Amino acid sequence: MAPIVSRPWRDGDERGMEAQHVTVDERELKEFCEQVFIRLGVPPKDAKTTIDVLVLADLRGIESHGVARLPRYVNGVKAGYIKPIERSRVVKETKTTALIDGEQSLGQVVSRKGMELAIRKAKETSVGIVTVRNSNHYGIAGYYTLMALEQDMIGVSMTNAAPLVVPTFGRNAILGTNPISVAAPASRERPFVLDMATSVVPRGKLEVLDRKGLPMPPGWAVDETGRSSADPSRVLNAMAKRLGGGILPLGGEGEEHSGHKGYGLALMVDVFSGVLSGAATGLKVNAEERKPDVGHFFMALDPAAFRPLDEFRLDMDRLARELKVSPKAQGQTRIYVHGEKSFTRMERFRKEGIPLDPKVVEALKKIGSELGVKWPK
Amino acid sequence: MAPIVSRPWRDGDERGMEAQHVTVDERELKEFCEQVFIRLGVPPKDAKTTIDVLVLADLRGIESHGVARLPRYVNGVKAGYIKPIERSRVVKETKTTALIDGEQSLGQVVSRKGMELAIRKAKETSVGIVTVRNSNHYGIAGYYTLMALEQDMIGVSMTNAAPLVVPTFGRNAILGTNPISVAAPASRERPFVLDMATSVVPRGKLEVLDRKGLPMPPGWAVDETGRSSADPSRVLNAMAKRLGGGILPLGGEGEEHSGHKGYGLALMVDVFSGVLSGAATGLKVNAEERKPDVGHFFMALDPAAFRPLDEFRLDMDRLARELKVSPKAQGQTRIYVHGEKSFTRMERFRKEGIPLDPKVVEALKKIGSELGVKWPK
Repeated sequence: MAPIVSRPWRDGDERGMEAQHVTVDERELKEFCEQVFIRLGVPPKDAKTTIDVLVLADLRGIESHGVARLPRYVNGVKAGYIKPIERSRVVKETKTTALIDGEQSLGQVVSRKGMELAIRKAKETSVGIVTVRNSNHYGIAGYYTLMALEQDMIGVSMTNAAPLVVPTFGRNAILGTNPISVAAPASRERPFVLDMATSVVPRGKLEVLDRKGLPMPPGWAVDETGRSSADPSRVLNAMAKRLGGGILPLGGEGEEHSGHKGYGLALMVDVFSGVLSGAATGLKVNAEERKPDVGHFFMALDPAAFRPLDEFRLDMDRLARELKVSPKAQGQTRIYVHGEKSFTRMERFRKEGIPLDPKVVEALKKIGSELGVKWPK
Repeated sequence: MAPIVSRPWRDGDERGMEAQHVTVDERELKEFCEQVFIRLGVPPKDAKTTIDVLVLADLRGIESHGVARLPRYVNGVKAGYIKPIERSRVVKETKTTALIDGEQSLGQVVSRKGMELAIRKAKETSVGIVTVRNSNHYGIAGYYTLMALEQDMIGVSMTNAAPLVVPTFGRNAILGTNPISVAAPASRERPFVLDMATSVVPRGKLEVLDRKGLPMPPGWAVDETGRSSADPSRVLNAMAKRLGGGILPLGGEGEEHSGHKGYGLALMVDVFSGVLSGAATGLKVNAEERKPDVGHFFMALDPAAFRPLDEFRLDMDRLARELKVSPKAQGQTRIYVHGEKSFTRMERFRKEGIPLDPKVVEALKKIGSELGVKWPK
């Protein structure tokens, strides 16, 4: 399982190949991918959930977490560390909290159950918190906070992930890119949907520069000496050979730009997702293919417990507008609120089709032909 | 009221005057400051709470939030926007949540009540969440999460603050340095205490470089054009004259180092502290001296709701040690876990006395002589 990354405001610019993208209809893409999972023994309902999470990533422009990842899930099921039949169970529960053992089920299926349970509890007691251990990669963190939004709630979602991020003053990756998503409903404005890795960049950005032979800006990643490097090839090589190196936390190298804060946020996510649930943490996350033991954290909070929902929504609008209408930096034309770009993209891709990298399409077709599922076109 | 800043891992290096520091005994300093508040009409118990928060900042090395701030509180009480007699009241409550109207009481007194209530609720229902509106500056965010630690709970504390941070692609400060503190208990290791502003640096760092005539690193702050500036004097001047400019969110300028993530975290803090409580948000925080209307958020979460406390603590230890023993970057000798430096400093300062800037001591003595309170030496 690869690290979790997030590129909230990016278009398909990382691969520099928008023009070459193949466009696929959302329904047809989902149907294809669901059939793939069904052939692997995943019940239709759970296949639907999993694909819903993957395709939402593509719709929102986080293609690194979209159907491009299907081959890894297929491999996970084949290798046995992802169980096609959902087996998760609640092992500890109070009126406001629950701990779920994922029993190595599909991360998306367990996580959807987790957030559903958190929401159900929040409907009863204003707040619900569910942690999950022994799970697999859960896709985009934002999928689960959007579930809370549908119920007029504030949602929080976090997960730990395989080590890729180097702590401040360290030289080895110990923490994952450990993302955080927080969503809150608005009224006429788009809801606020923060969905971010706690690293400065995702690994994908290093790979893009490496392919283009371009240097990295300082403060993105360190090589095996633990110092910031401009050479993506050296860093990726060191990481692949486990010589050291890795991506820097948000804030970059050392303390000059407060890299220790990004490191602290990544560690906080590991505390809430890993330690609180009893899942693996740090180097142990996904250390063994046989048992990735990923941990997640979900919270649903009812704003109406504090003030009338309408007032909350209107104040969200007011704050969003205040930011958006404020004067722009020289050379800039627009200030965004988090989630806004992704909602616009979703609407466009739902109408015009989802752009996929031709290499991703090739990989999907290959899986389809192996499992006897026909590619839509 | 000035912005909230946090320098988790810094010694007194910002002012470059450790050697000139005057050392004052913790008890004597507290006694002096409490008497100042008592003369202003603050009841002894509330004076004690307020000074406890201020002196803890000095003990933990966050001197920008320590007794150096006493003159501002004195002015706030004199000007009437800080009410010396605590008047806060719970205006909405469920078993797990509460909304407190601070009624312009001392931020520390209201916030202590807020976190106490959150902890009390968490003891009953595993989680307690309290938001506060119509409050004043609450000091260091970490004070309140340390309260949760004392009860073997995870604590979360956030507050909004007067605008000082420019959103990504903007040119005016709209958000505060909006800090987040999260604390979680460990066993033999120090507890995890993250206490960070969501800006890349506090304003104090610009002021230090300005005094020394040194340039700023790129990505700390923008001038009135909204572009990153190396000239602290220009930025501070633009901010003071309300021409624009301000500090950048964690991640710096634009998206290259993910400044939009720091901006998203600052906005998230405003949603939880300001929107959820119905306090001021964005530009309106502390916009009028007559009614600062600062908002706070407090959460206490019982880890024992998920797993036995001892297991939680041991896994916190294991994760902290894994980080600390991992290989160091070239030229570095130590990896820290958040809060560690501050705990060491607290122990030293409690034994050896608290080092204070001579200018701070002068200001305190002046207040003392005005109010008839004798400086300890």
